[in-house]
Amino acid sequence: MEELNLLKDKILGLLIKKNYHELRNLFDGMEPADIGIVFEDLPKESLPLLFRLLSKEQAAEVFVELNSDMQELLIEGFSDFELKEVLEELYLDDTVDIIEEMPANVVKRILKHTDPNIRASINEILKYPKYSAGSIMTIEFVDLKKNMTVEDAFTRIRRIGVDKETIYTCYVIDENRVLLGLVSVKDLLLADQSKIIEDIMETNVIYVNTLDDQEDAAKTFDKYDFLALPVVDNEKRLVGIITVDDAIDVIQEENTEDIEKMAAIMPNDKPYTQTGVFETYKKRIPWLLLLMISATFTGKIIQSYEEALAACVILTSFIPMIMDTGGNSGGQSSVTIIRGMSLNDIEMKDIFKVVWKEIRVALCCGITLAAANFIKMLIVDRGEIIASGQNPVMVALVVCLTLIFTVFFAKLIGCTLPMLAKKVGFDPAVMASPFITTVVDAVSLMIFFRIATIMLHIS
Amino acid sequence: MEELNLLKDKILGLLIKKNYHELRNLFDGMEPADIGIVFEDLPKESLPLLFRLLSKEQAAEVFVELNSDMQELLIEGFSDFELKEVLEELYLDDTVDIIEEMPANVVKRILKHTDPNIRASINEILKYPKYSAGSIMTIEFVDLKKNMTVEDAFTRIRRIGVDKETIYTCYVIDENRVLLGLVSVKDLLLADQSKIIEDIMETNVIYVNTLDDQEDAAKTFDKYDFLALPVVDNEKRLVGIITVDDAIDVIQEENTEDIEKMAAIMPNDKPYTQTGVFETYKKRIPWLLLLMISATFTGKIIQSYEEALAACVILTSFIPMIMDTGGNSGGQSSVTIIRGMSLNDIEMKDIFKVVWKEIRVALCCGITLAAANFIKMLIVDRGEIIASGQNPVMVALVVCLTLIFTVFFAKLIGCTLPMLAKKVGFDPAVMASPFITTVVDAVSLMIFFRIATIMLHIS
Repeated sequence: MEELNLLKDKILGLLIKKNYHELRNLFDGMEPADIGIVFEDLPKESLPLLFRLLSKEQAAEVFVELNSDMQELLIEGFSDFELKEVLEELYLDDTVDIIEEMPANVVKRILKHTDPNIRASINEILKYPKYSAGSIMTIEFVDLKKNMTVEDAFTRIRRIGVDKETIYTCYVIDENRVLLGLVSVKDLLLADQSKIIEDIMETNVIYVNTLDDQEDAAKTFDKYDFLALPVVDNEKRLVGIITVDDAIDVIQEENTEDIEKMAAIMPNDKPYTQTGVFETYKKRIPWLLLLMISATFTGKIIQSYEEALAACVILTSFIPMIMDTGGNSGGQSSVTIIRGMSLNDIEMKDIFKVVWKEIRVALCCGITLAAANFIKMLIVDRGEIIASGQNPVMVALVVCLTLIFTVFFAKLIGCTLPMLAKKVGFDPAVMASPFITTVVDAVSLMIFFRIATIMLHIS
Repeated sequence: MEELNLLKDKILGLLIKKNYHELRNLFDGMEPADIGIVFEDLPKESLPLLFRLLSKEQAAEVFVELNSDMQELLIEGFSDFELKEVLEELYLDDTVDIIEEMPANVVKRILKHTDPNIRASINEILKYPKYSAGSIMTIEFVDLKKNMTVEDAFTRIRRIGVDKETIYTCYVIDENRVLLGLVSVKDLLLADQSKIIEDIMETNVIYVNTLDDQEDAAKTFDKYDFLALPVVDNEKRLVGIITVDDAIDVIQEENTEDIEKMAAIMPNDKPYTQTGVFETYKKRIPWLLLLMISATFTGKIIQSYEEALAACVILTSFIPMIMDTGGNSGGQSSVTIIRGMSLNDIEMKDIFKVVWKEIRVALCCGITLAAANFIKMLIVDRGEIIASGQNPVMVALVVCLTLIFTVFFAKLIGCTLPMLAKKVGFDPAVMASPFITTVVDAVSLMIFFRIATIMLHIS
C-alpha cells in the first residue's frame, strides 16, 4: 500500500513533466491489478491520457480492474476505434460483467462495436439469472474430440489457446457438444504423443448446470481443488466453464453476503466506498425497523411486571447485563452453526448432536458466568442492594439463576433457529445475533421477573 | 448430499455381502473428496478394510481428505509397508498438514518411514511459524534455468512433472536458487520450441516471503488471479510455492476466523463437529465474561437514575428497544467497516469519508425509526402511558429523540472503533456487534435518562 502511494506521486510528477516515455516504461513493469488501484486514486481528468500510454494487452487487463464508474468514464472518452481495440482483448465473461454495470446507452455502444459472434454469446450469457453458474461462466475454453491424438490436441491448443481463459483443462465433447470427459495439459504432457484422447481422458467429470447457484459452483472448487469447472445445459451439452479466479470472487462475495445478513444488513453487490448514502440507508433500515418493532414485545413484558419493578427498582439495573449476556451467548451459537452449515460441516441430520453439545456448553458457560457475577454482586453492588431494602444474597441468587437459564435458552434458540430456518427454505444467516438477541431479550426478561417475583416475594 | 447417503447405504450393503470386487469398481469411479465424506460416515471398524480396496494413488488422495481422528486411526492400523506406500504418494504440504495434527508417537512413526530427503524438507517447513506463508507452501514445483530452450523446458517438465503439485507455472532460478522469473506452460506451448527461456520469461514476479502472513499470501491470489505464488527467503531464494487450492482454504479459514471474532468467539482451528464441549466452552467464555463485567457499567448508570425511574416506571419498558436498536445500528456500521477493511476496500486514509457517510446514514435511519416509533407509541402504548400518569406525546418525544441520538452515536462509534483498533494494531474484527453493543448500551441509557429528566421534569 505504502509502495503504491509512492508510485502515485511518481506518476503525478511524470504527468506534470509530460514525460510520457518514462510513464510508459513504469507501467510496463507493473501488474495490471496494481495499475488499476493507482488509477482509481488519480485525478479523473488525467485518466484517458494515462490509459492511452498502456500497451494494447495491458489496457484491456487494467480496464477490467477499474470500478464501473471509471470504466464508464473511459468508454465515454474512447473513440470507436479505441473501444473496439479494448473490447477485442477482453475475455467474454469480463465483457459481460462490464455490460451488467453500464447504463443502457453505453451498453448499446459496446454491443455495436463487438464482433457479431461474440455479441450473440454475450446476449446468451446475459439471459442467465443473476447468481447462476451460467452468469459467471466464460465460453472461452479448449474443446477436443475423443478420437484426436495427444499430438492433435497440442496442435489445437497451440492454434486456439491464445484467446482462451485457461488451456490447462481441455474438455472432450461429441458432435452434439455433449461433455464426454476432460483431460489436463499435465496428462497430455506426460502422455505418449500418439495416444488417443479417449484412452487418457477422465470420464468421471464433475460439472454444474447453467442454472445452478453460483455459490454451489464455487463450493465445488473448494471441495475438489479444480482449476476450472464445466457448465452444461439440461442435455449435458457443454456451454461454458468457470475458472478458479472467478470462483474465488464468488466465495468472497458470498462470505460478504453472509456477514452482512448476520449483521442485519440486506446484502449489497457493490463495495462500501462505491455505495451512496441513500443506498446504504435502504440496505440497513428494513431490519432496524423490523427488530425495533419486535422489541415492543419485550417492552410489554416489562410493562406487565411494572408493579414488581416499582417495588424493587434495583432489579432494573441488572436488565442490560442479562439481556446482553443472553444476546451474546445466543449469537455465539447461531453464528457458529450458520458458518458450519455454510461450510457443509454441519448438516440437518446433525441437529440432535448439535443441540446436545450446545446444552452442555450452555450449562458450563452459564454456571461460570453466574459464579463470577455472584461474587461481583456481593462485592460491588452489595451497598446499593441493601440501600434499596433488599437482601443482597437473595438478589444475587435471583440474578445468577436468571443468568444460567438465560444462557441455556439463548444457546438452545441460537443453535436451533438457523437449522429450522434452513429446513423451511430460509437463509440461515438471517438467524444471527440481531434476530436471536430480540428473541432472547423477551425470554430472559420473562425468566428474570418470574424468578424475582417468586424468590423476593414481590408481585 | 442425498446422493452420498444412497452411496453410503450401497457401500454398507456390499460390505456385508463381502462383494469387494464391486466395491473396488465403485470407488474407482468416485472423486477422492466424495470417498472421504462417505468414509467419515461409515462405522470406524470397517475403515481399514475399505481403505485397502482403494488403488495406491487414490488411497493417498482419500487419506488427505479424512479428518485427523480418522487419519490417526488408519495410521495406527497400517503395517509399516502400507504407511510407507501412502506417504510416498502424498504431496509434501499435505504430509506437513497431517503431521501437525498427530500426537507425538504417530509423528515419530511417520517421519521414520519417510524418505530422508523428504524428512529434511518436512522438518524445514515445520519450523515456519503457524499461519506464515512458509507453513502452507509446497516445495514440489518445476524449476528451470534461464539458458534452457523451450524444448529443454518441456523435457524437464515431462521428466519431473509427475510428482509436482502444479506444472502450469514454472520458475526460473539462477545457480544460487535466486528467483529470476516465471514462465507459464501456456507461454511455453505457444512459443517457438527453440526460443530461450530468458527471452520469454516474465521477470516482474510477485512473490511473498516465507514469514509473511498466510492471509496476505491468499489475498494476493484474490487480487492477481494467480494459479501459484512463489515463496522466497530473505535472500530472494525460491524455497517453495503456494497453490491456488491452498489459497482458497486459507481464504475460507480467515473468513471463518473473522466471523467468529465478530460473534465474540475466540478463533478455532477445527470445525465445529470436531471440537469437544470443553474446547468450545473455552473459546466462548472469555468474551462472555468480559462483556458481562463491562455491562456492569450500564447497570451503574441505571442505578444512578433509580429515583427518576421510580417516579416514572413506564420508561423502563422502552429500555430494551432503545438498547437493541442502538446495538443493531452500531453493529451494522462496524461489521460493514470491518469487512471493507478486510477486503482492502476501506483504508485508514478513508476515515473522514467513512465518518461523514455514516453520520448521514445515521440521521436518515434515526429519523425513520423515530417517526415509526412515534406513531406506534401513540397507537399501541398510549393507554399504558396515560395509566402511569404521564403525557403520551411527551413520553413518545423523549423516546424518539433518544432514538435519533442513539442511532447517531451508535453508527459513529461503530465505524470509528474498528478503524482505530486497526491503527493501534488490534484486529478490527473484535470491534463488532458484541463489543459495540456494550459501549452503545451505556451511551444510549445516558442519553435516555438525560432527555427524560429534562423533558418530563423528573429527577
